Amino acid sequence: MKKAVGPKADGFLRYRIDLAYEGTDFAGWAKQPGLRTVQGVFLSALELIFGKSEDDFAMRVAGRTDAGVHAESQVVHIDLLPEQLKRLGRPGNTVARLNSLLPKEIRVMDFSLAPAGFDARFSASFRRYRYRIADSVSGWNPLYGRTLLWVNFELDTARMRQAGEHFVGLHDFAAFSKPRAKATAIRELKVLKVSRDKQFGNVVEVELIADAFAHNMVRSIVGALIKVGAGRAEPKDVAKALKSRSRSHGFKVVGPEGLSLIEVGYPAKKDLGKQAEKARNMRSLEDQ
Amino acid sequence: MKKAVGPKADGFLRYRIDLAYEGTDFAGWAKQPGLRTVQGVFLSALELIFGKSEDDFAMRVAGRTDAGVHAESQVVHIDLLPEQLKRLGRPGNTVARLNSLLPKEIRVMDFSLAPAGFDARFSASFRRYRYRIADSVSGWNPLYGRTLLWVNFELDTARMRQAGEHFVGLHDFAAFSKPRAKATAIRELKVLKVSRDKQFGNVVEVELIADAFAHNMVRSIVGALIKVGAGRAEPKDVAKALKSRSRSHGFKVVGPEGLSLIEVGYPAKKDLGKQAEKARNMRSLEDQ
Repeated sequence: MKKAVGPKADGFLRYRIDLAYEGTDFAGWAKQPGLRTVQGVFLSALELIFGKSEDDFAMRVAGRTDAGVHAESQVVHIDLLPEQLKRLGRPGNTVARLNSLLPKEIRVMDFSLAPAGFDARFSASFRRYRYRIADSVSGWNPLYGRTLLWVNFELDTARMRQAGEHFVGLHDFAAFSKPRAKATAIRELKVLKVSRDKQFGNVVEVELIADAFAHNMVRSIVGALIKVGAGRAEPKDVAKALKSRSRSHGFKVVGPEGLSLIEVGYPAKKDLGKQAEKARNMRSLEDQ
Repeated sequence: MKKAVGPKADGFLRYRIDLAYEGTDFAGWAKQPGLRTVQGVFLSALELIFGKSEDDFAMRVAGRTDAGVHAESQVVHIDLLPEQLKRLGRPGNTVARLNSLLPKEIRVMDFSLAPAGFDARFSASFRRYRYRIADSVSGWNPLYGRTLLWVNFELDTARMRQAGEHFVGLHDFAAFSKPRAKATAIRELKVLKVSRDKQFGNVVEVELIADAFAHNMVRSIVGALIKVGAGRAEPKDVAKALKSRSRSHGFKVVGPEGLSLIEVGYPAKKDLGKQAEKARNMRSLEDQ
Protein backbone atom coordinates (compact mmCIF):
# COMPACT_ATOMS: atom_id res chain seq x y z
CA MET A 1 0.00 0.00 0.00
CA LYS A 2 1.67 3.19 -1.14
CA LYS A 3 -0.80 5.60 0.33
CA ALA A 4 -1.69 6.17 3.94
CA VAL A 5 -5.24 6.48 5.16
CA GLY A 6 -6.61 9.94 5.94
CA PRO A 7 -6.51 13.32 4.32
CA LYS A 8 -3.16 14.99 3.77
CA ALA A 9 -1.19 11.84 4.59
CA ASP A 10 1.76 11.69 2.15
CA GLY A 11 0.51 14.89 0.56
CA PHE A 12 -2.65 13.18 -0.72
CA LEU A 13 -6.15 14.38 -0.02
CA ARG A 14 -8.75 11.66 0.33
CA TYR A 15 -12.18 12.23 -1.26
CA ARG A 16 -15.36 10.32 -0.59
CA ILE A 17 -17.65 9.83 -3.58
CA ASP A 18 -21.27 8.64 -3.26
CA LEU A 19 -22.73 7.17 -6.41
CA ALA A 20 -25.54 5.01 -7.79
CA TYR A 21 -25.82 2.80 -10.85
CA GLU A 22 -28.12 0.52 -12.79
CA GLY A 23 -25.87 -2.48 -13.34
CA THR A 24 -27.70 -4.42 -16.07
CA ASP A 25 -25.31 -3.55 -18.88
CA PHE A 26 -22.08 -3.66 -16.86
CA ALA A 27 -19.78 -6.62 -16.22
CA GLY A 28 -19.80 -5.74 -12.52
CA TRP A 29 -17.97 -3.10 -10.51
CA ALA A 30 -14.31 -4.04 -10.84
CA LYS A 31 -12.28 -2.73 -13.77
CA GLN A 32 -11.46 -5.48 -16.26
CA PRO A 33 -9.63 -5.18 -19.55
CA GLY A 34 -11.97 -5.26 -22.55
CA LEU A 35 -15.15 -5.24 -20.48
CA ARG A 36 -17.59 -2.42 -19.70
CA THR A 37 -17.54 -2.22 -15.91
CA VAL A 38 -18.82 0.49 -13.56
CA GLN A 39 -15.37 1.19 -12.14
CA GLY A 40 -13.84 1.25 -15.63
CA VAL A 41 -16.36 3.78 -16.93
CA PHE A 42 -16.13 5.81 -13.72
CA LEU A 43 -12.31 5.93 -13.83
CA SER A 44 -12.43 7.20 -17.43
CA ALA A 45 -14.62 10.12 -16.30
CA LEU A 46 -12.31 10.87 -13.36
CA GLU A 47 -9.26 10.83 -15.64
CA LEU A 48 -10.91 13.33 -17.99
CA ILE A 49 -11.05 15.73 -15.05
CA PHE A 50 -7.94 14.88 -12.99
CA GLY A 51 -5.64 13.47 -15.66
CA LYS A 52 -4.32 9.92 -16.13
CA SER A 53 -3.70 7.93 -12.97
CA GLU A 54 -1.25 5.02 -12.83
CA ASP A 55 -2.88 3.51 -9.76
CA ASP A 56 -6.54 4.40 -10.46
CA PHE A 57 -6.40 7.15 -7.81
CA ALA A 58 -5.92 4.38 -5.20
CA MET A 59 -9.70 3.91 -5.43
CA ARG A 60 -11.42 1.60 -2.99
CA VAL A 61 -15.11 0.68 -3.01
CA ALA A 62 -17.46 -0.24 -0.15
CA GLY A 63 -19.25 -3.05 -1.99
CA ARG A 64 -17.67 -4.65 -5.04
CA THR A 65 -20.88 -5.61 -6.86
CA ASP A 66 -21.05 -8.46 -9.39
CA ALA A 67 -22.17 -8.27 -13.03
CA GLY A 68 -25.75 -7.04 -13.30
CA VAL A 69 -26.05 -5.95 -9.66
CA HIS A 70 -27.27 -2.40 -8.97
CA ALA A 71 -26.37 0.19 -6.36
CA GLU A 72 -28.64 2.96 -5.12
CA SER A 73 -25.99 4.00 -2.66
CA GLN A 74 -22.39 3.01 -3.25
CA VAL A 75 -19.34 4.66 -1.67
CA VAL A 76 -15.78 4.89 -2.99
CA HIS A 77 -12.74 6.91 -1.99
CA ILE A 78 -9.92 8.25 -4.12
CA ASP A 79 -6.66 9.97 -3.18
CA LEU A 80 -5.73 13.16 -5.02
CA LEU A 81 -2.60 15.32 -5.01
CA PRO A 82 -2.95 19.11 -4.86
CA GLU A 83 -1.74 19.37 -8.49
CA GLN A 84 -4.51 17.00 -9.62
CA LEU A 85 -7.09 19.00 -7.68
CA LYS A 86 -5.95 22.18 -9.40
CA ARG A 87 -7.29 20.77 -12.66
CA LEU A 88 -10.78 21.05 -11.18
CA GLY A 89 -10.68 24.83 -11.64
CA ARG A 90 -13.74 26.12 -9.85
CA PRO A 91 -14.50 23.56 -7.20
CA GLY A 92 -18.03 22.88 -6.00
CA ASN A 93 -19.51 21.63 -9.23
CA THR A 94 -17.51 18.41 -9.39
CA VAL A 95 -20.71 16.34 -9.07
CA ALA A 96 -22.31 18.02 -12.10
CA ARG A 97 -19.10 17.76 -14.14
CA LEU A 98 -18.69 14.06 -13.40
CA ASN A 99 -22.33 13.39 -14.24
CA SER A 100 -21.98 15.21 -17.56
CA LEU A 101 -19.15 12.79 -18.42
CA LEU A 102 -20.94 9.63 -17.27
CA PRO A 103 -23.68 7.57 -18.93
CA LYS A 104 -27.14 8.02 -17.38
CA GLU A 105 -26.79 4.58 -15.76
CA ILE A 106 -24.19 5.97 -13.34
CA ARG A 107 -24.91 9.01 -11.18
CA VAL A 108 -22.63 10.72 -8.70
CA MET A 109 -24.56 12.09 -5.75
CA ASP A 110 -21.76 13.55 -3.66
CA PHE A 111 -18.05 14.34 -3.87
CA SER A 112 -16.47 15.58 -0.67
CA LEU A 113 -13.24 15.70 1.32
CA ALA A 114 -13.18 12.61 3.54
CA PRO A 115 -12.73 12.91 7.31
CA ALA A 116 -9.46 11.71 8.85
CA GLY A 117 -9.21 7.92 8.98
CA PHE A 118 -11.91 7.36 6.35
CA ASP A 119 -11.63 4.32 4.11
CA ALA A 120 -14.67 3.60 1.88
CA ARG A 121 -14.19 -0.12 2.32
CA PHE A 122 -12.52 -0.70 5.65
CA SER A 123 -14.29 2.01 7.64
CA ALA A 124 -17.73 0.71 6.65
CA SER A 125 -19.55 -0.71 9.66
CA PHE A 126 -22.42 -2.26 7.71
CA ARG A 127 -23.82 -2.87 4.24
CA ARG A 128 -27.52 -3.04 3.42
CA TYR A 129 -28.69 -4.94 0.34
CA ARG A 130 -32.18 -5.30 -1.09
CA TYR A 131 -33.42 -8.07 -3.35
CA ARG A 132 -36.71 -7.47 -5.20
CA ILE A 133 -38.83 -10.27 -6.65
CA ALA A 134 -42.00 -9.94 -8.72
CA ASP A 135 -44.25 -12.99 -8.38
CA SER A 136 -47.72 -14.07 -9.50
CA VAL A 137 -49.26 -11.94 -6.72
CA SER A 138 -47.50 -8.68 -7.56
CA GLY A 139 -47.49 -9.26 -11.29
CA TRP A 140 -44.83 -7.83 -13.51
CA ASN A 141 -44.47 -4.14 -14.27
CA PRO A 142 -42.07 -4.00 -17.23
CA LEU A 143 -41.27 -0.33 -16.45
CA TYR A 144 -39.12 -1.55 -13.56
CA GLY A 145 -38.18 -4.86 -15.15
CA ARG A 146 -34.42 -4.30 -15.12
CA THR A 147 -34.31 -4.20 -11.33
CA LEU A 148 -36.56 -7.17 -10.50
CA LEU A 149 -36.33 -10.94 -10.56
CA TRP A 150 -39.46 -12.56 -12.00
CA VAL A 151 -40.91 -15.85 -10.74
CA ASN A 152 -44.19 -17.17 -12.16
CA PHE A 153 -45.57 -18.58 -8.90
CA GLU A 154 -46.77 -17.17 -5.61
CA LEU A 155 -44.24 -16.49 -2.86
CA ASP A 156 -45.38 -17.13 0.70
CA THR A 157 -43.61 -14.35 2.60
CA ALA A 158 -44.45 -15.88 6.02
CA ARG A 159 -42.56 -19.05 5.07
CA MET A 160 -39.69 -16.98 3.66
CA ARG A 161 -39.51 -15.08 6.95
CA GLN A 162 -39.37 -18.33 8.92
CA ALA A 163 -36.54 -19.61 6.75
CA GLY A 164 -34.78 -16.25 6.96
CA GLU A 165 -34.56 -16.39 10.74
CA HIS A 166 -32.07 -19.26 10.50
CA PHE A 167 -29.59 -17.01 8.68
CA VAL A 168 -29.62 -14.21 11.23
CA GLY A 169 -26.66 -14.09 13.62
CA LEU A 170 -22.99 -15.04 13.44
CA HIS A 171 -22.50 -17.99 11.10
CA ASP A 172 -20.04 -19.58 8.74
CA PHE A 173 -21.84 -18.91 5.45
CA ALA A 174 -19.64 -21.35 3.47
CA ALA A 175 -22.77 -23.20 2.30
CA PHE A 176 -24.28 -19.94 1.07
CA SER A 177 -21.39 -18.19 -0.63
CA LYS A 178 -18.81 -18.74 -3.34
CA PRO A 179 -15.46 -19.70 -1.82
CA ARG A 180 -12.56 -17.30 -2.21
CA ALA A 181 -8.96 -18.20 -1.56
CA LYS A 182 -7.71 -17.19 1.89
CA ALA A 183 -11.09 -15.70 2.79
CA THR A 184 -13.42 -16.85 5.51
CA ALA A 185 -17.21 -16.87 5.09
CA ILE A 186 -17.87 -16.12 8.76
CA ARG A 187 -20.22 -13.14 8.88
CA GLU A 188 -22.73 -11.63 11.22
CA LEU A 189 -26.06 -11.15 9.50
CA LYS A 190 -27.73 -8.50 11.61
CA VAL A 191 -31.06 -8.16 9.83
CA LEU A 192 -33.04 -10.21 7.32
CA LYS A 193 -36.46 -8.74 6.54
CA VAL A 194 -39.03 -10.12 4.10
CA SER A 195 -41.97 -7.94 3.09
CA ARG A 196 -44.17 -6.86 0.25
CA ASP A 197 -43.52 -3.31 -0.90
CA LYS A 198 -47.00 -1.85 -1.33
CA GLN A 199 -45.57 1.35 -2.79
CA PHE A 200 -43.62 -0.52 -5.40
CA GLY A 201 -46.31 -2.70 -6.92
CA ASN A 202 -46.54 -5.27 -4.12
CA VAL A 203 -43.28 -6.99 -5.08
CA VAL A 204 -41.47 -9.12 -2.50
CA GLU A 205 -38.47 -7.41 -0.92
CA VAL A 206 -35.73 -9.12 1.04
CA GLU A 207 -33.53 -6.70 2.94
CA LEU A 208 -30.28 -7.82 4.53
CA ILE A 209 -27.84 -5.98 6.76
CA ALA A 210 -24.42 -7.34 7.73
CA ASP A 211 -21.04 -5.90 8.62
CA ALA A 212 -19.96 -7.38 5.31
CA PHE A 213 -21.17 -10.11 2.95
CA ALA A 214 -19.22 -13.03 1.54
CA HIS A 215 -19.15 -13.43 -2.24
CA ASN A 216 -22.59 -14.36 -3.68
CA MET A 217 -24.00 -14.58 -0.15
CA VAL A 218 -27.12 -12.47 -0.69
CA ARG A 219 -28.05 -14.23 -3.93
CA SER A 220 -27.48 -17.65 -2.33
CA ILE A 221 -29.66 -16.79 0.67
CA VAL A 222 -32.42 -15.34 -1.54
CA GLY A 223 -32.33 -18.49 -3.70
CA ALA A 224 -33.06 -20.57 -0.60
CA LEU A 225 -35.82 -18.22 0.57
CA ILE A 226 -37.52 -18.42 -2.83
CA LYS A 227 -37.52 -22.23 -2.77
CA VAL A 228 -39.09 -22.20 0.71
CA GLY A 229 -41.52 -19.43 -0.29
CA ALA A 230 -42.65 -21.54 -3.25
CA GLY A 231 -43.30 -24.49 -0.94
CA ARG A 232 -40.59 -26.65 -2.50
CA ALA A 233 -38.44 -26.76 0.65
CA GLU A 234 -38.99 -26.36 4.38
CA PRO A 235 -37.56 -23.62 6.59
CA LYS A 236 -35.66 -26.28 8.56
CA ASP A 237 -33.89 -27.40 5.34
CA VAL A 238 -32.24 -23.99 5.33
CA ALA A 239 -30.92 -24.47 8.87
CA LYS A 240 -29.56 -27.89 7.95
CA ALA A 241 -27.83 -26.60 4.81
CA LEU A 242 -26.26 -23.70 6.71
CA LYS A 243 -24.87 -26.03 9.39
CA SER A 244 -23.44 -28.39 6.77
CA ARG A 245 -21.07 -25.64 5.52
CA SER A 246 -21.24 -27.45 2.19
CA ARG A 247 -22.66 -26.05 -1.05
CA SER A 248 -24.14 -29.41 -2.09
CA HIS A 249 -27.65 -28.54 -0.98
CA GLY A 250 -30.50 -28.13 -3.46
CA PHE A 251 -30.71 -24.34 -3.24
CA LYS A 252 -29.80 -22.22 -6.24
CA VAL A 253 -28.05 -18.87 -6.47
CA VAL A 254 -30.50 -16.39 -8.06
CA GLY A 255 -29.60 -13.94 -10.82
CA PRO A 256 -28.23 -10.45 -10.17
CA GLU A 257 -31.19 -8.46 -11.57
CA GLY A 258 -33.11 -8.03 -8.31
CA LEU A 259 -30.11 -7.07 -6.19
CA SER A 260 -29.15 -3.54 -5.13
CA LEU A 261 -26.68 -2.20 -2.60
CA ILE A 262 -28.86 0.38 -0.88
CA GLU A 263 -26.79 1.64 2.04
CA VAL A 264 -23.26 1.66 3.38
CA GLY A 265 -22.98 2.65 7.03
CA TYR A 266 -19.97 4.33 8.65
CA PRO A 267 -19.29 4.96 12.33
CA ALA A 268 -18.94 8.43 13.84
CA LYS A 269 -15.90 10.37 12.61
CA LYS A 270 -13.81 9.64 15.68
CA ASP A 271 -14.22 5.87 15.24
CA LEU A 272 -13.43 5.71 11.50
CA GLY A 273 -9.79 4.69 11.98
CA LYS A 274 -10.64 2.17 14.68
CA GLN A 275 -13.28 0.52 12.48
CA ALA A 276 -10.86 0.36 9.55
CA GLU A 277 -8.19 -1.29 11.70
CA LYS A 278 -10.72 -3.85 12.93
CA ALA A 279 -11.98 -4.66 9.43
CA ARG A 280 -8.47 -5.01 8.03
CA ASN A 281 -7.54 -7.48 10.72
CA MET A 282 -10.71 -9.49 10.30
CA ARG A 283 -10.90 -9.86 6.58
CA SER A 284 -8.50 -10.45 3.75
CA LEU A 285 -8.13 -7.94 0.93
CA GLU A 286 -9.87 -10.28 -1.48
CA ASP A 287 -13.00 -10.32 0.58
CA GLN A 288 -15.76 -7.75 1.04
CA MET B 1 -63.52 -2.63 -42.53
CA LYS B 2 -64.04 -6.34 -43.06
CA LYS B 3 -64.96 -7.23 -39.55
CA ALA B 4 -67.89 -6.06 -37.52
CA VAL B 5 -67.63 -4.89 -33.95
CA GLY B 6 -68.69 -7.22 -31.14
CA PRO B 7 -68.24 -10.85 -30.34
CA LYS B 8 -69.57 -13.44 -32.78
CA ALA B 9 -70.22 -10.89 -35.55
CA ASP B 10 -69.22 -12.54 -38.85
CA GLY B 11 -68.18 -15.61 -36.88
CA PHE B 12 -65.33 -13.77 -35.22
CA LEU B 13 -64.87 -13.57 -31.49
CA ARG B 14 -63.38 -10.36 -30.20
CA TYR B 15 -60.80 -10.55 -27.42
CA ARG B 16 -59.57 -7.76 -25.19
CA ILE B 17 -55.90 -7.90 -24.22
CA ASP B 18 -54.41 -5.77 -21.44
CA LEU B 19 -50.67 -5.33 -21.62
CA ALA B 20 -47.74 -3.22 -20.40
CA TYR B 21 -44.35 -2.42 -21.89
CA GLU B 22 -41.10 -0.57 -21.32
CA GLY B 23 -40.72 1.23 -24.62
CA THR B 24 -37.07 2.35 -24.57
CA ASP B 25 -35.80 -0.17 -27.11
CA PHE B 26 -38.84 -0.15 -29.41
CA ALA B 27 -39.53 2.08 -32.43
CA GLY B 28 -42.98 2.78 -31.01
CA TRP B 29 -46.19 0.76 -31.00
CA ALA B 30 -47.13 0.47 -34.67
CA LYS B 31 -45.74 -2.40 -36.74
CA GLN B 32 -43.13 -1.21 -39.24
CA PRO B 33 -41.08 -3.28 -41.66
CA GLY B 34 -37.50 -3.75 -40.49
CA LEU B 35 -38.04 -2.07 -37.13
CA ARG B 36 -38.50 -3.57 -33.65
CA THR B 37 -41.90 -2.28 -32.55
CA VAL B 38 -44.17 -3.35 -29.69
CA GLN B 39 -46.98 -4.35 -32.03
CA GLY B 40 -44.57 -6.19 -34.33
CA VAL B 41 -43.10 -8.25 -31.49
CA PHE B 42 -46.56 -8.82 -29.99
CA LEU B 43 -48.03 -10.00 -33.31
CA SER B 44 -45.18 -12.50 -33.71
CA ALA B 45 -46.08 -14.02 -30.34
CA LEU B 46 -49.80 -14.14 -31.24
CA GLU B 47 -49.01 -15.83 -34.56
CA LEU B 48 -46.98 -18.52 -32.78
CA ILE B 49 -50.14 -19.42 -30.89
CA PHE B 50 -52.96 -18.69 -33.36
CA GLY B 51 -51.17 -19.12 -36.69
CA LYS B 52 -50.33 -16.55 -39.38
CA SER B 53 -52.79 -13.71 -39.83
CA GLU B 54 -53.10 -11.77 -43.07
CA ASP B 55 -54.68 -8.79 -41.38
CA ASP B 56 -52.87 -8.87 -38.01
CA PHE B 57 -56.00 -10.28 -36.32
CA ALA B 58 -57.70 -6.92 -37.09
CA MET B 59 -55.87 -5.60 -34.05
CA ARG B 60 -56.67 -2.13 -32.76
CA VAL B 61 -54.94 -0.34 -29.90
CA ALA B 62 -56.24 2.23 -27.41
CA GLY B 63 -53.14 4.47 -27.48
CA ARG B 64 -50.66 4.21 -30.35
CA THR B 65 -47.53 5.18 -28.42
CA ASP B 66 -44.49 6.75 -30.11
CA ALA B 67 -40.92 5.45 -30.09
CA GLY B 68 -39.56 5.22 -26.55
CA VAL B 69 -42.92 5.79 -24.82
CA HIS B 70 -44.00 3.27 -22.16
CA ALA B 71 -47.34 1.78 -21.17
CA GLU B 72 -48.26 0.46 -17.75
CA SER B 73 -51.77 -0.18 -18.97
CA GLN B 74 -52.44 -0.52 -22.68
CA VAL B 75 -55.48 -2.16 -24.25
CA VAL B 76 -55.84 -3.85 -27.66
CA HIS B 77 -58.45 -6.04 -29.24
CA ILE B 78 -58.11 -8.82 -31.77
CA ASP B 79 -60.70 -10.83 -33.67
CA LEU B 80 -60.35 -14.60 -33.73
CA LEU B 81 -62.18 -17.35 -35.61
CA PRO B 82 -63.20 -20.52 -33.77
CA GLU B 83 -60.59 -22.50 -35.75
CA GLN B 84 -57.85 -20.12 -34.59
CA LEU B 85 -59.06 -20.42 -30.99
CA LYS B 86 -58.86 -24.20 -31.22
CA ARG B 87 -55.09 -23.89 -31.52
CA LEU B 88 -55.07 -22.62 -27.93
CA GLY B 89 -55.76 -26.15 -26.67
CA ARG B 90 -56.39 -25.77 -22.97
CA PRO B 91 -57.71 -22.25 -22.57
CA GLY B 92 -57.16 -20.23 -19.40
CA ASN B 93 -53.39 -20.02 -19.53
CA THR B 94 -53.20 -17.79 -22.60
CA VAL B 95 -51.63 -14.98 -20.53
CA ALA B 96 -48.80 -17.23 -19.31
CA ARG B 97 -48.24 -18.67 -22.79
CA LEU B 98 -48.05 -15.24 -24.40
CA ASN B 99 -45.66 -14.01 -21.72
CA SER B 100 -43.40 -17.02 -22.24
CA LEU B 101 -43.13 -15.99 -25.92
CA LEU B 102 -42.56 -12.27 -25.26
CA PRO B 103 -39.43 -10.39 -24.15
CA LYS B 104 -39.51 -9.24 -20.51
CA GLU B 105 -40.14 -5.68 -21.73
CA ILE B 106 -43.69 -6.64 -22.76
CA ARG B 107 -46.11 -8.25 -20.32
CA VAL B 108 -49.67 -9.39 -20.95
CA MET B 109 -51.83 -8.90 -17.89
CA ASP B 110 -55.18 -10.09 -19.18
CA PHE B 111 -56.70 -11.87 -22.17
CA SER B 112 -60.49 -12.12 -22.17
CA LEU B 113 -63.55 -12.29 -24.39
CA ALA B 114 -64.68 -8.71 -25.04
CA PRO B 115 -68.23 -7.62 -24.26
CA ALA B 116 -70.56 -6.83 -27.17
CA GLY B 117 -69.75 -3.51 -28.83
CA PHE B 118 -66.21 -3.34 -27.44
CA ASP B 119 -63.53 -1.63 -29.52
CA ALA B 120 -60.17 -1.08 -27.76
CA ARG B 121 -59.73 2.22 -29.53
CA PHE B 122 -63.16 3.61 -30.27
CA SER B 123 -64.92 2.49 -27.08
CA ALA B 124 -62.33 4.17 -24.89
CA SER B 125 -63.84 7.10 -23.01
CA PHE B 126 -60.56 8.47 -21.65
CA ARG B 127 -56.80 7.99 -21.66
CA ARG B 128 -54.55 8.82 -18.72
CA TYR B 129 -50.87 9.57 -19.30
CA ARG B 130 -48.12 10.26 -16.78
CA TYR B 131 -44.89 12.12 -17.44
CA ARG B 132 -42.11 11.76 -14.84
CA ILE B 133 -39.23 14.21 -14.50
CA ALA B 134 -36.23 13.96 -12.19
CA ASP B 135 -34.79 17.38 -11.34
CA SER B 136 -32.13 18.82 -9.05
CA VAL B 137 -34.51 18.48 -6.08
CA SER B 138 -35.36 14.81 -6.56
CA GLY B 139 -31.96 13.85 -7.86
CA TRP B 140 -31.51 10.99 -10.24
CA ASN B 141 -31.98 7.35 -9.30
CA PRO B 142 -30.40 5.40 -12.16
CA LEU B 143 -32.39 2.28 -11.20
CA TYR B 144 -35.45 3.90 -12.75
CA GLY B 145 -33.55 5.93 -15.33
CA ARG B 146 -35.23 4.44 -18.39
CA THR B 147 -38.63 5.82 -17.36
CA LEU B 148 -37.63 9.36 -16.33
CA LEU B 149 -36.65 12.59 -18.05
CA TRP B 150 -33.69 14.28 -16.36
CA VAL B 151 -33.30 18.05 -16.04
CA ASN B 152 -30.37 19.53 -14.10
CA PHE B 153 -32.27 22.43 -12.54
CA GLU B 154 -35.05 22.82 -10.01
CA LEU B 155 -38.66 22.64 -11.17
CA ASP B 156 -41.14 24.92 -9.42
CA THR B 157 -44.27 22.77 -9.34
CA ALA B 158 -46.50 25.69 -8.25
CA ARG B 159 -45.57 27.57 -11.43
CA MET B 160 -46.07 24.43 -13.51
CA ARG B 161 -49.52 24.02 -11.98
CA GLN B 162 -50.42 27.62 -12.85
CA ALA B 163 -49.32 27.12 -16.44
CA GLY B 164 -51.12 23.79 -16.59
CA GLU B 165 -54.48 25.35 -15.77
CA HIS B 166 -54.48 27.08 -19.16
CA PHE B 167 -54.52 23.73 -20.94
CA VAL B 168 -57.50 22.30 -19.09
CA GLY B 169 -60.80 22.34 -20.96
CA LEU B 170 -61.88 22.10 -24.60
CA HIS B 171 -59.20 23.64 -26.85
CA ASP B 172 -57.73 23.43 -30.29
CA PHE B 173 -54.29 22.01 -29.38
CA ALA B 174 -52.79 22.78 -32.82
CA ALA B 175 -49.99 24.78 -31.14
CA PHE B 176 -49.20 21.84 -28.87
CA SER B 177 -49.36 18.85 -31.19
CA LYS B 178 -47.89 17.55 -34.42
CA PRO B 179 -50.29 18.10 -37.31
CA ARG B 180 -51.76 15.03 -39.01
CA ALA B 181 -53.54 15.10 -42.33
CA LYS B 182 -57.32 15.25 -42.06
CA ALA B 183 -57.15 15.26 -38.26
CA THR B 184 -58.28 17.98 -35.92
CA ALA B 185 -56.41 18.85 -32.72
CA ILE B 186 -59.54 19.82 -30.82
CA ARG B 187 -59.52 17.89 -27.55
CA GLU B 188 -60.97 18.16 -24.10
CA LEU B 189 -58.24 17.97 -21.49
CA LYS B 190 -60.13 16.92 -18.38
CA VAL B 191 -57.32 16.80 -15.83
CA LEU B 192 -53.78 18.14 -15.61
CA LYS B 193 -52.12 17.46 -12.26
CA VAL B 194 -48.57 18.40 -11.26
CA SER B 195 -47.10 16.88 -8.10
CA ARG B 196 -44.01 15.41 -6.54
CA ASP B 197 -44.27 11.68 -6.03
CA LYS B 198 -42.88 11.15 -2.53
CA GLN B 199 -43.06 7.38 -2.94
CA PHE B 200 -41.05 7.47 -6.11
CA GLY B 201 -38.02 9.49 -5.05
CA ASN B 202 -39.69 12.92 -5.07
CA VAL B 203 -39.72 13.16 -8.86
CA VAL B 204 -42.11 15.57 -10.58
CA GLU B 205 -45.17 13.89 -12.07
CA VAL B 206 -47.51 15.42 -14.61
CA GLU B 207 -50.72 13.46 -15.02
CA LEU B 208 -53.13 14.20 -17.86
CA ILE B 209 -56.55 12.81 -18.65
CA ALA B 210 -58.39 13.47 -21.90
CA ASP B 211 -60.93 11.64 -24.04
CA ALA B 212 -58.08 11.34 -26.51
CA PHE B 213 -54.79 13.11 -27.18
CA ALA B 214 -53.54 14.59 -30.45
CA HIS B 215 -50.15 13.41 -31.72
CA ASN B 216 -47.25 14.60 -29.50
CA MET B 217 -49.73 16.57 -27.37
CA VAL B 218 -48.56 15.35 -23.94
CA ARG B 219 -44.88 15.86 -24.73
CA SER B 220 -45.58 19.35 -26.13
CA ILE B 221 -47.55 20.38 -23.04
CA VAL B 222 -44.89 18.96 -20.67
CA GLY B 223 -42.18 20.84 -22.61
CA ALA B 224 -44.04 24.10 -21.93
CA LEU B 225 -44.58 23.24 -18.25
CA ILE B 226 -40.88 22.53 -17.80
CA LYS B 227 -39.89 25.89 -19.29
CA VAL B 228 -42.30 27.67 -16.94
CA GLY B 229 -41.21 25.51 -14.01
CA ALA B 230 -37.59 26.47 -14.67
CA GLY B 231 -38.53 30.17 -14.62
CA ARG B 232 -37.67 30.70 -18.28
CA ALA B 233 -41.27 31.47 -19.31
CA GLU B 234 -44.41 32.75 -17.64
CA PRO B 235 -47.68 30.82 -17.18
CA LYS B 236 -49.44 33.43 -19.35
CA ASP B 237 -47.04 32.65 -22.24
CA VAL B 238 -48.62 29.22 -22.33
CA ALA B 239 -52.11 30.69 -22.69
CA LYS B 240 -50.92 32.96 -25.48
CA ALA B 241 -49.23 30.13 -27.37
CA LEU B 242 -52.31 27.90 -27.06
CA LYS B 243 -54.58 30.65 -28.45
CA SER B 244 -52.23 31.30 -31.38
CA ARG B 245 -52.83 27.74 -32.70
CA SER B 246 -49.35 28.06 -34.19
CA ARG B 247 -46.33 25.92 -33.31
CA SER B 248 -43.92 28.85 -33.64
CA HIS B 249 -43.69 29.48 -29.91
CA GLY B 250 -40.49 28.90 -27.95
CA PHE B 251 -41.65 25.72 -26.22
CA LYS B 252 -39.97 22.41 -27.01
CA VAL B 253 -41.39 18.92 -27.27
CA VAL B 254 -39.69 16.78 -24.60
CA GLY B 255 -38.31 13.29 -25.20
CA PRO B 256 -40.37 10.12 -24.83
CA GLU B 257 -38.49 8.61 -21.85
CA GLY B 258 -40.69 10.05 -19.09
CA LEU B 259 -44.02 9.24 -20.75
CA SER B 260 -46.29 6.31 -19.88
CA LEU B 261 -49.85 5.46 -20.80
CA ILE B 262 -51.18 4.47 -17.39
CA GLU B 263 -54.92 3.97 -17.88
CA VAL B 264 -57.51 3.55 -20.60
CA GLY B 265 -61.08 4.04 -19.43
CA TYR B 266 -64.16 2.39 -20.92
CA PRO B 267 -67.82 3.11 -20.24
CA ALA B 268 -70.21 0.57 -18.74
CA LYS B 269 -70.89 -2.45 -20.97
CA LYS B 270 -74.23 -1.16 -22.23
CA ASP B 271 -72.65 2.09 -23.49
CA LEU B 272 -69.67 0.55 -25.30
CA GLY B 273 -71.26 0.66 -28.73
CA LYS B 274 -72.60 4.16 -28.24
CA GLN B 275 -69.16 5.45 -27.20
CA ALA B 276 -67.54 3.78 -30.21
CA GLU B 277 -70.04 5.38 -32.59
CA LYS B 278 -69.40 8.79 -31.06
CA ALA B 279 -65.61 8.44 -31.25
CA ARG B 280 -65.70 7.24 -34.85
CA ASN B 281 -67.75 10.26 -35.90
CA MET B 282 -65.55 12.69 -34.04
CA ARG B 283 -62.12 11.57 -35.09
CA SER B 284 -60.44 10.33 -38.22
CA LEU B 285 -58.83 6.91 -38.32
CA GLU B 286 -55.36 8.46 -38.40
CA ASP B 287 -55.90 10.14 -35.10
CA GLN B 288 -55.93 8.79 -31.54
